[in-house]
Amino acid sequence: MSTTKEIPYKIYLEENEMPKAWYNLRADMINKPAPLLNPGTLQPMKAEELAGVFCDELVKQELDNDTRFIEIPEEIRNFYKMYRPSPLVRAYCLEEKLQTPAKIYYKFEGNNTSGSHKLNSAIAQAYYAKKQGLKGVTTETGAGQWGTALSMACSYFDLDCKVFMVKVSYEQKPFRREVMRTYGASVTPSPSMETEVGKRINAAHPGTTGSLGCAISEAVEVATSTPGYRYVLGSVLNQVLLHQSVIGLETKAALDKYGIKADIVIGCAGGGSNLGGLIAPFMGEKIQKGTDYRIIAVEPASCPSFTRGVYAYDFCDTGMVCPLAKMYTLGSDFIPAPNHAGGLRYHGMSSTLSQLYADGLMEATTVKQTEVFEAAEQFARVEGILPAPESSHAIKVAIDEALKCKETGEEKTIVFGLTGTGYFDLVAYQKFHDNEMSDYIPTDEELAKFRANLPKID
Amino acid sequence: MSTTKEIPYKIYLEENEMPKAWYNLRADMINKPAPLLNPGTLQPMKAEELAGVFCDELVKQELDNDTRFIEIPEEIRNFYKMYRPSPLVRAYCLEEKLQTPAKIYYKFEGNNTSGSHKLNSAIAQAYYAKKQGLKGVTTETGAGQWGTALSMACSYFDLDCKVFMVKVSYEQKPFRREVMRTYGASVTPSPSMETEVGKRINAAHPGTTGSLGCAISEAVEVATSTPGYRYVLGSVLNQVLLHQSVIGLETKAALDKYGIKADIVIGCAGGGSNLGGLIAPFMGEKIQKGTDYRIIAVEPASCPSFTRGVYAYDFCDTGMVCPLAKMYTLGSDFIPAPNHAGGLRYHGMSSTLSQLYADGLMEATTVKQTEVFEAAEQFARVEGILPAPESSHAIKVAIDEALKCKETGEEKTIVFGLTGTGYFDLVAYQKFHDNEMSDYIPTDEELAKFRANLPKID
Repeated sequence: MSTTKEIPYKIYLEENEMPKAWYNLRADMINKPAPLLNPGTLQPMKAEELAGVFCDELVKQELDNDTRFIEIPEEIRNFYKMYRPSPLVRAYCLEEKLQTPAKIYYKFEGNNTSGSHKLNSAIAQAYYAKKQGLKGVTTETGAGQWGTALSMACSYFDLDCKVFMVKVSYEQKPFRREVMRTYGASVTPSPSMETEVGKRINAAHPGTTGSLGCAISEAVEVATSTPGYRYVLGSVLNQVLLHQSVIGLETKAALDKYGIKADIVIGCAGGGSNLGGLIAPFMGEKIQKGTDYRIIAVEPASCPSFTRGVYAYDFCDTGMVCPLAKMYTLGSDFIPAPNHAGGLRYHGMSSTLSQLYADGLMEATTVKQTEVFEAAEQFARVEGILPAPESSHAIKVAIDEALKCKETGEEKTIVFGLTGTGYFDLVAYQKFHDNEMSDYIPTDEELAKFRANLPKID
Repeated sequence: MSTTKEIPYKIYLEENEMPKAWYNLRADMINKPAPLLNPGTLQPMKAEELAGVFCDELVKQELDNDTRFIEIPEEIRNFYKMYRPSPLVRAYCLEEKLQTPAKIYYKFEGNNTSGSHKLNSAIAQAYYAKKQGLKGVTTETGAGQWGTALSMACSYFDLDCKVFMVKVSYEQKPFRREVMRTYGASVTPSPSMETEVGKRINAAHPGTTGSLGCAISEAVEVATSTPGYRYVLGSVLNQVLLHQSVIGLETKAALDKYGIKADIVIGCAGGGSNLGGLIAPFMGEKIQKGTDYRIIAVEPASCPSFTRGVYAYDFCDTGMVCPLAKMYTLGSDFIPAPNHAGGLRYHGMSSTLSQLYADGLMEATTVKQTEVFEAAEQFARVEGILPAPESSHAIKVAIDEALKCKETGEEKTIVFGLTGTGYFDLVAYQKFHDNEMSDYIPTDEELAKFRANLPKID
């Protein structure tokens, strides 16, 4: 493969070039991510303890720090073929607009009905649930991206799918709810009267519009108390990053095919599923061969877990029913200011990414919401695609880096993850157009207050 | 190319295999479509008469019944590369679900932010407007698909874009409006107080929520009375079918590449832009070489212009300001019953398609709304994509044909056009889920009433 080969606007791998195994970055990490802890005993969670919550095969993947490549079952590869390989796009029009010598590429994960990369892990989790002979799975969803992806996956494998949707979203964002219903999922506004925890919360806070933490607790309760059901989660977990490695593997293969070496790899960071998947093979090469990649996590200034959080054991959920994870966290009761980038509101960060960041292998930066939407609109106008607010965090930093190249004259190759489309985020776009968007950033005092509530573990 | 080659889930042409010229089916038609008539003189419209409304180059294309291939300018081809070639998808999962020996393919035009094939013509019309040195273009939009596509195209060529959006849609469907604003278009609820016709209508019908006919009249008035502006239209016209031939050319090239011959080609029919584009090369071969293709237009039972209309000269707009076209029509004041397939509510049909239908070269059939949504949901659950209601008309008939093959055991190859996604049609899906969907079909008496108002021309 020669570097002089003309690069098309969109690089599509052939079907037979698609990854046949996921890449488990943990196998190549010198310092492994810290284990999940049992909140009662404070001892590392054992497989048998996790098996009541998650499918057996997923528990195995969650705990596996050693196997470098894990085969993607053929059934999942066939499903991937319906919407993958996703294109690696050369942003010729954005480069032209910016008048930059930089070469900009983005891996676009939005060309499927879930509208994001979430489907990559949803189909894997549904598959293992089906294979184990389960009847169904439960989950929570906020804005609805993960719930949509899971509904699609469950529909494909004829698996029951029960989604607890934060009540305020259920009522104010009916469209994703309808997509989920189209795929046959049952969608329950949370807190509901179907669970003990839901009843308790409704009694204590009549008229509450719910929270993600409460929805998680309801989903876990149903999964653990209903025979034949398990709970599934769309981010943060090691297993999810493993499945999402398909993004990075395809990206790397497409670049290699044209003899291109990335200089900078950029991804938005909420719980870490997209970022962890995109960077996996680049990070692996950086660790193993010392290849010079700058890897940048972009988080909202309103929810800055990497840049202003602490690296400590914390609860993964506000209800404190899940295991403890060591991660960069703002505290499990942190609630970000109104921020329309729904997927980037999580208080913590994947343990794997947290360890890599602690080891100095990647950078992190924050961007403000208004500048994110400015970048989104600029991108949409030249590249056509209307980006999700989450993805637009990466766009903003990619543009900034490309403009630095313009100043220095460097022809760097910048690769970023365009995780999804913004078709269901138009209320946020409207607020941006009407100058009603908040750029609130938490003060040090506010962050200290949440940090004080962290569990005392070391 | 061998027929035994394994067919991938998605056939993507290479960038260098994309069409370099549009195919003008009219050049191969034995009976040409009837000319547009000047509503005053009833004589065929001359180029100079049309030039006040449309761009010069588009007028030329509109009147050109002779040139078989018209080169796609490089600037347009570069824009096409951002979202084309679109995939020709082998519907393996749908075939499996139906247990049919038929081979089903669909050409998916929804993977761009406008959500449909409309962008193919929008970018061409914007290009010629820019090339002519115009400042901007005007148009009308109902649900907003065409307006969105045009905004994207105008933004790319830095052209002013003024969209008159039917007031009821402007208020009840704010999301597409926001997409248009993101691309810098000005969106005015119609009837407005910015035009003479708008003022007249507002005075005569205080509080009216508008209609497509009124929005057309406003857009035409602004275009013809503002220096440097022209009017553009997203369907019905010959020029639009010409641009949309890129759909059919890519489809045919992808099939040829794998040695596949289509037996049945199916498309939904509103004004005819998608259907005319998809079938063009198949129809051309059928006319020229007698190749055996069944070509089926699918229209909603609520708006059956082919199947229950008459072939006659009629006004293209309810305001009766545009030229007269000979077409299958229900009468220009026909208003279909509530029908959520927004793009299929037009009272008439492209003159080109009308002539082909009159000549017995294609079939037409109708489907009811509820069965359309049943097909849409079935398709979404196995093929992943949430289809637009318009496209789902074609899905319904493709499924029916595949089930006939199951009965007869025939291994027919069925190709249909999946024109777009249903992300902005979720209110319709919700009505379907909640059993609130109407299947109203106009009675013969109702149709006779509208037919009686047709202009008396022959």
